Amino acid sequence: MKVKSLRIVVSSARKFINMGSLPRLWNLVKNFHAADISSIMDHFIIREKLTLFNVIYEKDKEKSAEVVSELDPEDAALIIQQLSLHQITELFQIIPSDDIPPVLQLLPAELQDAILSEMEEEPSEEVKELLHYEEETAGRIMSQDFYALNQNTNVSDAITAMQLEGDVESSFYLYVVDDDFHLVGVVSLRRVLFSRPNTKLKEIMTSDVLFVHTDNDQEEVARSVAAYNLVAIPVLDTENVLVGVVTVDDVIDVIDKEATEDMYKMVSLDTSDRVQDSAFTSLKKRLPFLIFSLLTASLAPFVVNHFTETIEKFVTLAIFMPLVMALGGIAGNQTIAIIVREIALGQADWMTAKKALGKELLVGIGNGLIIGVILAAVSYALLQNPYMGLILGLAIIINLFVAALLGTLIPLFLKLIKLDPALGSVNLLTMCTDSIGILSLFGLGTFFLKNLA
Amino acid sequence: MKVKSLRIVVSSARKFINMGSLPRLWNLVKNFHAADISSIMDHFIIREKLTLFNVIYEKDKEKSAEVVSELDPEDAALIIQQLSLHQITELFQIIPSDDIPPVLQLLPAELQDAILSEMEEEPSEEVKELLHYEEETAGRIMSQDFYALNQNTNVSDAITAMQLEGDVESSFYLYVVDDDFHLVGVVSLRRVLFSRPNTKLKEIMTSDVLFVHTDNDQEEVARSVAAYNLVAIPVLDTENVLVGVVTVDDVIDVIDKEATEDMYKMVSLDTSDRVQDSAFTSLKKRLPFLIFSLLTASLAPFVVNHFTETIEKFVTLAIFMPLVMALGGIAGNQTIAIIVREIALGQADWMTAKKALGKELLVGIGNGLIIGVILAAVSYALLQNPYMGLILGLAIIINLFVAALLGTLIPLFLKLIKLDPALGSVNLLTMCTDSIGILSLFGLGTFFLKNLA
Repeated sequence: MKVKSLRIVVSSARKFINMGSLPRLWNLVKNFHAADISSIMDHFIIREKLTLFNVIYEKDKEKSAEVVSELDPEDAALIIQQLSLHQITELFQIIPSDDIPPVLQLLPAELQDAILSEMEEEPSEEVKELLHYEEETAGRIMSQDFYALNQNTNVSDAITAMQLEGDVESSFYLYVVDDDFHLVGVVSLRRVLFSRPNTKLKEIMTSDVLFVHTDNDQEEVARSVAAYNLVAIPVLDTENVLVGVVTVDDVIDVIDKEATEDMYKMVSLDTSDRVQDSAFTSLKKRLPFLIFSLLTASLAPFVVNHFTETIEKFVTLAIFMPLVMALGGIAGNQTIAIIVREIALGQADWMTAKKALGKELLVGIGNGLIIGVILAAVSYALLQNPYMGLILGLAIIINLFVAALLGTLIPLFLKLIKLDPALGSVNLLTMCTDSIGILSLFGLGTFFLKNLA
Repeated sequence: MKVKSLRIVVSSARKFINMGSLPRLWNLVKNFHAADISSIMDHFIIREKLTLFNVIYEKDKEKSAEVVSELDPEDAALIIQQLSLHQITELFQIIPSDDIPPVLQLLPAELQDAILSEMEEEPSEEVKELLHYEEETAGRIMSQDFYALNQNTNVSDAITAMQLEGDVESSFYLYVVDDDFHLVGVVSLRRVLFSRPNTKLKEIMTSDVLFVHTDNDQEEVARSVAAYNLVAIPVLDTENVLVGVVTVDDVIDVIDKEATEDMYKMVSLDTSDRVQDSAFTSLKKRLPFLIFSLLTASLAPFVVNHFTETIEKFVTLAIFMPLVMALGGIAGNQTIAIIVREIALGQADWMTAKKALGKELLVGIGNGLIIGVILAAVSYALLQNPYMGLILGLAIIINLFVAALLGTLIPLFLKLIKLDPALGSVNLLTMCTDSIGILSLFGLGTFFLKNLA
């Protein structure tokens, strides 16, 4: 839905809710895709969300389940809690099993247990199994709805089996397994459609199948699906038994989430911070990072403190302090963004890292020389003091070199010690470039101006 | 391929190339997926890339075409140029038509013309058509290989038609059109497989089809596919005739590219800057942005210049200048990251924007008060000067408020004037927070210390 029409729909829906004309509300939304209804709810306050959901739930249980699948887990949990235990389990039997754990774990512990024991055998077991895998792994995001048949099945039996199976979420491929349910091949539905009825699956399958394991990181899984242009990838357990499938729609969610997280971590933000959060929630999320920033930012004043004598004598140096700091920070951020993004796209192994470091240092020196010379020339023209120009130029060259060095090393080092390469990297870098920039400026200033001016 | 094994493969391949033992090189790579071969080539110098490609080309033309599809357009163009005109056109007839334009446009103009006129009628026309659409639109990234049949076709004829059509890139759905080739519905292959032979397509199709137009921005298209969990979306021309399909693998590429671009634009980087570029190339790309940064960073020194008298008298104020600057910059970057990401994910319309502004201001004031009080207390404890604490606390509160205000408004304003919301936003923000932070610190300092101390 376009932003403009979304706006109109949101305000109409709100009007109907306030007027209490629920039939008109239902008429408005009944032909919308669940994803659109979820977008509308993003603009609603809690009361409005509940009213809209209840109308949909009454009229079309199937659709209300789709809406729950599309909503943020937080919103979904909120809506779920106002339903009876029976209603919840009923909904959870319609929702694809991989969408349930994120919502379920936000509910109170007793309610979780009650739901799991109330749900009919099979889907409840599925959900329990999914909950059992670590967060952010293939096991957690995989779907357990897929077609898998024995390699000795023939095409006509396969078609019958798939018909009996009913609607399956990830129905793009038919996976082929041996007698112990080990994955041995894959056939596209297209291939099945166009093969003779008595052909065995093992004769038409591709045995060179890409797969992941349940404990693989979700980002790695997403990168495999993206690199090989797949629409789904099978997931095997530790015994190589086929237990699930990760589909491309979940992969896109992972890629979006990781891109947001990288950007957030670079600037020291909690990865769950969103525009929709209340001011108080966001404040609580941001405060620890700002206090961390306060600590990293406190190094520079100590450096300046060593040079108060120089500043009192040559106050012009203080004028250029913000400039040296800003340029170092900006150049360092550029290098960090490049390295963080290459790591995220899976292109930055150690071989690349060494080359990257050499290259960034060359770029840093080159840019430092050019910007340094420009600044030296301009400041000489303005101040008619050759030493000032020299000091400023050298300080910039030093600071851009440091920015390139640390902009490359900080994310790589964070990755090496198994932390997130983006986490707080800008803070750490700014701490260093600010301090070293100030040190260069005032250090060179003290040396040249005292001895030569 | 895992990083570790990639490393081994790259060094083995390099050894074989240097030894000239091409059969062993072929043995090494022949079972690799084209995406893996492309990853290997990323680590190669030009000569090595050409050798590896030529070996694959000689042994398996089909595979060499897949490799060209997977490579960066720059690398692909480089490799293509060493082939004869006849060899190029032969390859281009195997490569999916939507992968050709990015490579083609990097070749010399005469070669482009020669290729287009040499290629057999149909694919050449397709490529010409694709080249005709604006860059970064649905028309440019769509594939022209898809199944589309008239609504009055019955299932058995449809199956025969699809069999005759052969292998089709985006074969997940069968699109249904009327006599004028207007899109009227869609059927999944699964549905076709499970329907009776004499059923007409219009009886089993879903007529509520999501689609995009050729001139829609590729990011909008990607957002639609992501929001509605599709694996492909049909593309219509201005007369609503079905002309192509955007598949989910291209959508993932768009999403990755846009995430990189957002992060790059935030820190003022050229969006094509990559680790693989040579130092000289990157230097050329980054220099204009650093000169822009030099300009934005030059405001702060002018502000400081107004306060040299205050600094000479109260040099302690200069000590805290870096701290006020750093905290303002960090808090502002946080707000920018939140707003830029919300705009990218399509959630930041004007309704959300107003709410976001109010909220960010509250967060800014709240955090400003807390950090301001901490800093005031700490500095009072260290310096035993109540005015210093008051000045510092107030400067932080003012600067975090400004950071929240401008961190929200700068990206929204850039979007309003149809520029990219991330473009140079961190530079502009830092320019303002640096200057206003310094102004607050020294302004308050001049007032309090002169009048009261």
